[in-house]
Amino acid sequence: MSYFGNVKQIKFEGASSDNPFAYKYYNPAEQINGQSMEQLLRFAVSYWHTFTGEGNDPFGVGTAVRPYDHLSGMELAKARVEASFEFFEKLGVPYFCFHDFDIAPEADSLSETLKNVDVIVDRIEEHLKTSKVKLLWNTANMFTHPRWLHGAATSPNADVFAYAAAKVKKGLEIGKRLGAENFVFWGGREGYETLLNTDMGLELDNLARFFHMAKDYAKEIGFDGQFLIEPKPKEPTKHQYDFDVATGLAFLQKYDLQDIFKFNVEANHATLAGHTFEHELRTARINGMLGSVDANQGDPLLGWDTDEFPTDLYSTTLGMYEIIKNGGLGSGGLNFDAKVRRGSFDVDDLFYSHIAGMDAFAIGAKVAQRLIDDRVLDDFIAERYRSYTTGIGREIVEGKTDFHKLEQHALRIDSIDNNQSGRLEQLKATVNKYLVETFASVHSS
Amino acid sequence: MSYFGNVKQIKFEGASSDNPFAYKYYNPAEQINGQSMEQLLRFAVSYWHTFTGEGNDPFGVGTAVRPYDHLSGMELAKARVEASFEFFEKLGVPYFCFHDFDIAPEADSLSETLKNVDVIVDRIEEHLKTSKVKLLWNTANMFTHPRWLHGAATSPNADVFAYAAAKVKKGLEIGKRLGAENFVFWGGREGYETLLNTDMGLELDNLARFFHMAKDYAKEIGFDGQFLIEPKPKEPTKHQYDFDVATGLAFLQKYDLQDIFKFNVEANHATLAGHTFEHELRTARINGMLGSVDANQGDPLLGWDTDEFPTDLYSTTLGMYEIIKNGGLGSGGLNFDAKVRRGSFDVDDLFYSHIAGMDAFAIGAKVAQRLIDDRVLDDFIAERYRSYTTGIGREIVEGKTDFHKLEQHALRIDSIDNNQSGRLEQLKATVNKYLVETFASVHSS
Amino acid sequence: MSYFGNVKQIKFEGASSDNPFAYKYYNPAEQINGQSMEQLLRFAVSYWHTFTGEGNDPFGVGTAVRPYDHLSGMELAKARVEASFEFFEKLGVPYFCFHDFDIAPEADSLSETLKNVDVIVDRIEEHLKTSKVKLLWNTANMFTHPRWLHGAATSPNADVFAYAAAKVKKGLEIGKRLGAENFVFWGGREGYETLLNTDMGLELDNLARFFHMAKDYAKEIGFDGQFLIEPKPKEPTKHQYDFDVATGLAFLQKYDLQDIFKFNVEANHATLAGHTFEHELRTARINGMLGSVDANQGDPLLGWDTDEFPTDLYSTTLGMYEIIKNGGLGSGGLNFDAKVRRGSFDVDDLFYSHIAGMDAFAIGAKVAQRLIDDRVLDDFIAERYRSYTTGIGREIVEGKTDFHKLEQHALRIDSIDNNQSGRLEQLKATVNKYLVETFASVHSS
Amino acid sequence: MSYFGNVKQIKFEGASSDNPFAYKYYNPAEQINGQSMEQLLRFAVSYWHTFTGEGNDPFGVGTAVRPYDHLSGMELAKARVEASFEFFEKLGVPYFCFHDFDIAPEADSLSETLKNVDVIVDRIEEHLKTSKVKLLWNTANMFTHPRWLHGAATSPNADVFAYAAAKVKKGLEIGKRLGAENFVFWGGREGYETLLNTDMGLELDNLARFFHMAKDYAKEIGFDGQFLIEPKPKEPTKHQYDFDVATGLAFLQKYDLQDIFKFNVEANHATLAGHTFEHELRTARINGMLGSVDANQGDPLLGWDTDEFPTDLYSTTLGMYEIIKNGGLGSGGLNFDAKVRRGSFDVDDLFYSHIAGMDAFAIGAKVAQRLIDDRVLDDFIAERYRSYTTGIGREIVEGKTDFHKLEQHALRIDSIDNNQSGRLEQLKATVNKYLVETFASVHSS
Repeated sequence: MSYFGNVKQIKFEGASSDNPFAYKYYNPAEQINGQSMEQLLRFAVSYWHTFTGEGNDPFGVGTAVRPYDHLSGMELAKARVEASFEFFEKLGVPYFCFHDFDIAPEADSLSETLKNVDVIVDRIEEHLKTSKVKLLWNTANMFTHPRWLHGAATSPNADVFAYAAAKVKKGLEIGKRLGAENFVFWGGREGYETLLNTDMGLELDNLARFFHMAKDYAKEIGFDGQFLIEPKPKEPTKHQYDFDVATGLAFLQKYDLQDIFKFNVEANHATLAGHTFEHELRTARINGMLGSVDANQGDPLLGWDTDEFPTDLYSTTLGMYEIIKNGGLGSGGLNFDAKVRRGSFDVDDLFYSHIAGMDAFAIGAKVAQRLIDDRVLDDFIAERYRSYTTGIGREIVEGKTDFHKLEQHALRIDSIDNNQSGRLEQLKATVNKYLVETFASVHSS
Repeated sequence: MSYFGNVKQIKFEGASSDNPFAYKYYNPAEQINGQSMEQLLRFAVSYWHTFTGEGNDPFGVGTAVRPYDHLSGMELAKARVEASFEFFEKLGVPYFCFHDFDIAPEADSLSETLKNVDVIVDRIEEHLKTSKVKLLWNTANMFTHPRWLHGAATSPNADVFAYAAAKVKKGLEIGKRLGAENFVFWGGREGYETLLNTDMGLELDNLARFFHMAKDYAKEIGFDGQFLIEPKPKEPTKHQYDFDVATGLAFLQKYDLQDIFKFNVEANHATLAGHTFEHELRTARINGMLGSVDANQGDPLLGWDTDEFPTDLYSTTLGMYEIIKNGGLGSGGLNFDAKVRRGSFDVDDLFYSHIAGMDAFAIGAKVAQRLIDDRVLDDFIAERYRSYTTGIGREIVEGKTDFHKLEQHALRIDSIDNNQSGRLEQLKATVNKYLVETFASVHSS
Repeated sequence: MSYFGNVKQIKFEGASSDNPFAYKYYNPAEQINGQSMEQLLRFAVSYWHTFTGEGNDPFGVGTAVRPYDHLSGMELAKARVEASFEFFEKLGVPYFCFHDFDIAPEADSLSETLKNVDVIVDRIEEHLKTSKVKLLWNTANMFTHPRWLHGAATSPNADVFAYAAAKVKKGLEIGKRLGAENFVFWGGREGYETLLNTDMGLELDNLARFFHMAKDYAKEIGFDGQFLIEPKPKEPTKHQYDFDVATGLAFLQKYDLQDIFKFNVEANHATLAGHTFEHELRTARINGMLGSVDANQGDPLLGWDTDEFPTDLYSTTLGMYEIIKNGGLGSGGLNFDAKVRRGSFDVDDLFYSHIAGMDAFAIGAKVAQRLIDDRVLDDFIAERYRSYTTGIGREIVEGKTDFHKLEQHALRIDSIDNNQSGRLEQLKATVNKYLVETFASVHSS
Repeated sequence: MSYFGNVKQIKFEGASSDNPFAYKYYNPAEQINGQSMEQLLRFAVSYWHTFTGEGNDPFGVGTAVRPYDHLSGMELAKARVEASFEFFEKLGVPYFCFHDFDIAPEADSLSETLKNVDVIVDRIEEHLKTSKVKLLWNTANMFTHPRWLHGAATSPNADVFAYAAAKVKKGLEIGKRLGAENFVFWGGREGYETLLNTDMGLELDNLARFFHMAKDYAKEIGFDGQFLIEPKPKEPTKHQYDFDVATGLAFLQKYDLQDIFKFNVEANHATLAGHTFEHELRTARINGMLGSVDANQGDPLLGWDTDEFPTDLYSTTLGMYEIIKNGGLGSGGLNFDAKVRRGSFDVDDLFYSHIAGMDAFAIGAKVAQRLIDDRVLDDFIAERYRSYTTGIGREIVEGKTDFHKLEQHALRIDSIDNNQSGRLEQLKATVNKYLVETFASVHSS
C-alpha cells in the first residue's frame, strides 16, 4: 500500500527544472571536497513534525491533511511507520530522528507506554533491515505529558525523576537496537517558571546526576552513540537551563561531563538566545563539541520557535562554512527540525518543504566550499592576525611574556597607528559575489 | 584639489570583475521594465553618514580617517562640500541628501547658525550648476543640540517650537533654492521619555499645527517638493510619535494632513518597529503614500538602529518588488542612510560600502522584475483570491450583500472544504530559484 | 450541586488577613472618587481561560484539574455554565465574557454549531435572570477551527467570509439577547504569514466591508453594545492587521468606521507591540476611543502572549491612572484575559489568581487616585507646558501664528536657555513614595 | 570651594518626609539581619556617569549642566575630583568606582596618558586619607579610544594587546595604591562585529592569556582585590564574549581561571542577555561567584543599555533577596552604574537620582529580609522538594541509585499522581503583600 501514491521518487534534475517534485541543487552524488553531498549533509527527517505534527498552534487546532487521518491509537502509529519509510525513500534522505512519544502513543502508565513503544520499534527494526535509511538519533519526550509539568530530571518530585530515568533507559535500549548514531537530550521543561518556587542549585545537581547515570547505563549496554545536548533558552519554560552552547559548556565542565556530550545546535534556538546560527556552531566547534544540527530557521521578528524550513541562503552558507571547517558533522547530521506552516496543510507541502530545505543547504554547501577553496576568508583572517606570528605577538601566544615586557613594548611604540580596517562591508559584498558566482556555475553546469 | 585621489571613476565592469572599485551588477544604463537602472533606483548619498559621521558610538569616539580631518569649523564644512561632490561624481550617484546641521556647524544662536548655512548653501549651489548630481531632499536637524532635549515641534517649551519653525522655514528656502525634490521630517525627539511628565495630546496637536504651518510656508514660497514623514519607533526617544507607517497614517488622517505627506520608509526603522521592510513599503503603497526610501539594513539581533549598508539580497529583492509595483518612487529615491562600521574606518570603505549597497539593490531590482515579468506571485495571488471575482465573493466586494444573505450562503454550504494551501515554503523556494536564475543570467551576460 | 464546594464566598478581609481565599485590598463597596470600587473596576472573568482552558502549551497537553473533567461534548458545556456562575458569584465579580466557541463545542457544520450555541445560551439566559452577574461582552471565535487558517473576514476564500458573517450575526443576536454591553472583534487570523501570497489591499478592504455590515445588522436588531477592536501585533499570525491602537485608528479612519468602534486594550498585546500598557491606554484615551481593557500582563523577556494574571503594581497603577483620567471605562470593564500557569493546575489556583489580580488593580486604583487627588503629575505637567498658555505659545495653540512670526520670535531670543529638567528620576521616586504611602494607609485602616 | 553649595548633607528623614534632598527609606544605621544598611548595601557612585558623563546619546550632544563646565583638560579633571568627594560625602555613600579614563584625559600616547593619571591619582589619594569614602573598584577603559576599535586583549593587533596590558598593569598599581577592594574587567570591545573576519578561537585564547598575566602581576605587587568579570551580551560590540554569567563561567573553567574571578552582575546587562537580574545573581551565587553588582535598570521595551537609576521595587527586592542569601556581597557593593536621563540635566537631578536608587534598594532590602525571616519562600521550597530528603529521592541525591533501580521504582508507581501546584500566582501575590506590609511598617515607624 502507498501513502503518497501521487509522488514519485524525488530526483536531482538541476537548476533549470520546473518540476516542483525535483531537486534543483541537491545532487546526492555530487562531490564537495572529496565527499558526496549525501555524505557531507547527512539529511534527516524529523518524525514529529512530519508524521505526528498536525499543524496546531496556541490559537488553533490541527489543519494537516494526512493519508492516515482516519486511524487512531496504535493503528495510527503503525500506519505512520509505513508512511514514514515510504516518505524517507521517496525523498532519498539517509536518516530520520524520533522521540519515543512520536512513534507510539504515550499512556498514563509507564508499563503501557513501554509496551506501545516496543510494538512500533519492532516494525521500525523490520524496515531498517531492508531500507538504506538509518536512525540518526532518538530521544525521550519528557515535556508533553502533564507529569512533566515541573520538569523531568529537574522535577521537584523524585518520582518524576525516576520515571524520566525509565524513559531514557528505554530510549538508550532502543537506540542500541536500532543502531542510532546519537542520543539527544532536549530539556524543554528543565528550567523554571519563577525563581520564587525554585531550588536552582538542587535542580542542576540532579540534572548532572541524571546524565551521569545515563552514561553509565549506555556503557553497560554497549550503546556507543554520541550523547548530545540541544540548547534552547526558553519556550515552553520561562527559563531553560540549557540556554545556549556556552551555558551548556559551563554546566558540562562543572559536572565533569564535557567528555561525554557534544551539542545538537538548532538554528532557531540560536536566534531565540540572541545569537546567530553560525555563532552557536562556531562556539561548539572551537570547543570540539559540534555534534549535530537541527536545521531550520526562525523569524527574527517573532519571539517564539517557529521551526521554519531553512530557506535563507545566508544562513545555510554560513552554517555549512562552520560545518565544513569542523571536518563535517561526524556521527551527526542535518535534521530538519522544521514544520510546514499551518496554512501549508497538504501532503504535497511536506515534499515541497523538504526539497526547499535540502536545496537551500546544497547551495549553502557549494558556496561555503568555494569560499574555503579560494581561501577568501582564511587569507583575510591570516593577514589580519599576522602580528601574532612574530615578535611580541608570538611571545604572547607562546606564553613567553608578562605585563612588564608588554608595558615596555607599549611604551616603546607609545601610540597605536597600525590598526587595519575590518572591511565588514567588503566581506559581505564578497559573500554576495560568491552566491552569484556559485549559482551561475550551478546553473550553467 | 582631489580628496579621493587614489580612486578613479567607479564603473560597471560586470559580475566577473574582481576590481573592488567597480560595480559588478549596477549598470546605470541597463534597462529594467523600460527604465534605466539609474532612473529606477535613483540612488542618493547621505551627507551625514558619509561626510559628517566620524564612526563614534555610545562607548567610543570617532575612528574615521578622512582627508579633511585636519580642518575644523567652517573650513571643515567647506572642504566637505568639495569632497562630497568629488565622491558623488566618482561614484556616479544622481542624488544626495542632507540635514542643515550636516553641511554647516550649528551654533548656539540661531542667527549665527543661519549665517553658517548660507555660506555653505552658496557653495553647493555653485556645484549644482555644473554637476549632474541633484538634491533628493534636505531636512532640518532638530535632535542633536541640547535645545531639542525635550522635542522640537513637540517641546513643552514654546520658544523651542518657534526655533524649530525658523529652522524648517530656512530648510524650505534652501530646498527651493537648491531644487530639492522632497523635504523630510524625521522627529527623533518628537516623542516622550515617560508619560509621567508628558501631555501627549497637546504635543501631537502642536505637531500637527507645525506641519500645517510648514505647508503654508512651502506654498507661499513656491516650494513644491514632496513632504515626507520618516517613521521610527524609538531611539533616541523612548517612544517616538511617528512609530511606523500605520501610526503616521492615523496621525495624518486625524489632522487632515494626508494629502500633504507621503512616507520616507527606512528598512532599519521598520524592523525596530517589529515589521519587515516590505511590510512598511506595502502599507505605504496600498495607501498611495510611498514617497521615498532610506536604504539600509538592521541587525535583527541588535535592538538599536545599526544603519548598516544594505547587502541582504532578500531585503533588496522584496523591497524592489514593492517599489516596482508602486510604479517607482516618483520624486523619491533610494537614499543610503547607512554608515560604515566603526571598524571600517578607511576612506576606501566609503566606496566599498556604497558599491556593496548599490550592487545589492541592482541585483534585487533584476530579481524583482523577473518575478513580476513572469507573474510568479501575481498569478498565484490571482488564483488564491479568485472566489472574490464571482458569486458571493463578487457581491461582497461590490457591496451588494449583507449579513442575512451571507448567513444563508454559509448555511447552504454549511461547512468549508475548499481552502487551499498557502504554499509558503514553495514560494520561498521559488524566490531562491529566481535569485539563482537571475544571477546566472547576470553572470553569463 | 456545587463545583467548588470547598471554597466559600470570597470577601474583603483587609491587608492584615492571611486567608488566601480573601481580598486584602479589593473592597467592592469602598469609595474611590465618588464611585465604589465595584463600579470603577468592573471586573470580568474570561470564560475561555477559566472554564475552557486546559493548561496546554505548544509543547504540552493540558494539565488543569477541573471538577467537570469527566464530562465531554454538550454535557461538559452545560456543566461549565453551572460551574462558571458558581465561580462568578463566589468571587463576587460583576461581569464575564465569552467567545461562542467557549460556551459550546464548535462543529464542522455551521448549522450544528449554531444549535449547540442556542442550547447553552438558553442556560446562560436563565442564570442571568437570577444572578447579579452580567455579560460584559461576547465575541465570535474565528481562529481555532481549521476553516480560519487563512483568516476569517480577510480570508482569500469568500465562503469563509460568509461563514464568518454568519457567526458574527449570531454573536450579535446573542449579545442582544443576553444584554452584552459590548461586542469584541479580535482578529487573530486577520493578517498574513507572508506577503508573497497576500493581497493586503483587498484583505483590508474586505475587513472594512465586514465591519460595516456588522454595524448595519446590529442596528437592524437593536443591539446597542459598543463595538470594540482588540489590537494585537502578532501571534498566532505572523503579522496581524490590528497591530496596535494607532494602526487600528488608521484603519478605522480610512474606512469611516471611527464613530462605530472603540478599542479593547490588552496589556500583554501592548508590550508585544513594543508599547507600554499605559501608552496604549493613553493613545486610545486622547482619541476618545478607550472602550475596555483586557487586564493581564506579559513577561518582558518572553516573545509571546503569556496572558499572566496582572500582579505588577506599577502596571496596575499607571493603567488605572489612564482609566480614571478617562472618566472610567463607560460600558467597558477590566476583563481578566489571563490564565493560570500550566504548573498552577489546581482549582484553588483559579481563585488565588483572580484574587491576586483584583487586589493588584485595587491597589493600583487607590494609588492612582491619590496621585490624581494630590495633582502630583497634573501640577508638574501644567507647569512644564505653561509656555503654551501665554505669548507665542498661546498663539501657536490658538492658530494665530505662522512661520514668519515664529522665525521673528526665534531670532529675537536667538538662543534657548529656558529648558527645564524633565525630572524623570524624581517622578519615579514619587510614584514609589505614593505606593508606600497608599499601602501604609491601607494597612493602617 | 563648594561645587554643590545649595545642597546640604543628605540625611534620612523617614517615609513621611517631603524633602527631595532626604532619604525616606535608606537609613544607614538601621539594622537588617545584624548588619547596618550601610554595611549590607555598600553603595558606590560611578565616577563616569556622574562626573564624566555629559548626557550625550547617539543622536545628540551632551546636555548636562555641571559646575565645572567652564574647565577643560587636566583642570577639568582636577575639579571633578574635588566635586566628586564633595558629592560622595554629601550623599553619604561609602564607596566610588572609576575607569582610568574617567579621572584623567586619555592621550594618544601611552606615556602621556599615564602621566595624566598619576597626577589625578595623587589627588584622590589625598582625599582618601581624610575621607571615610573608599574605592570599591577601579578598571581600565579599553573601549573609548579608536585604538580599541577591534578589541583590547582580543585585538587582532598584538601591539594593542601590549597597550592593554600596560593599562591594566597601571590599573592594578592604582588599585593597590588606593586600596581598591576589587578590579573589574568589562570587555566592551572584546567580541566581534562579524565572524567573517574573526578568529574567535585565538581571540578567546588571548583573552585567557591576558587574565593569567594580570593575576600574576597582581600577585607580584600584592594587590589582593577581587578580580571581577562584568558580563554583557552586546553593545557596543555586536557579540561580546562575556555574554552572561554562564558564558563567563564556561570561559573561566576552560582556561582554569575560575578561582581567580567572580562576577560583577549588572541588572541592565542581564535583561539585554534575556535574563532577569535575579537570574544572573542566582547563577553567580550557586556557583560561589557573586562578587559585586552594577545597580541599575533597563527598559524592557528598548534594546540597548539604558543604565537607568534603579527604581523598580520588584527588581531591588528580588535582587536583595539573592544578595542576602549570598551572605552579602563580601568585598563587592552596589555600584550605581546608572545615568540621569538626558532630559534630567540639572545638578539637582544627580542627587535626586541617587536618592531614588538608594531608597529603592533600602526598601528592597527590608522586604527581602522579611521574606527571609518569615521563611515565606524557604518553607514553600523545602516542602516542594521534600521528596529528595527520603526514599528514592534521597538515593538520587546521595548517588546511591542507577537507571535499573529508578526504572523499577517507576514501574512500581507506574503513573504519577503526586505533582503539586507551583502556586506562581499566589507567590506573586505574597510578594505584593510583603511589599505592602513592609512599607506600612516603614511608614508607621
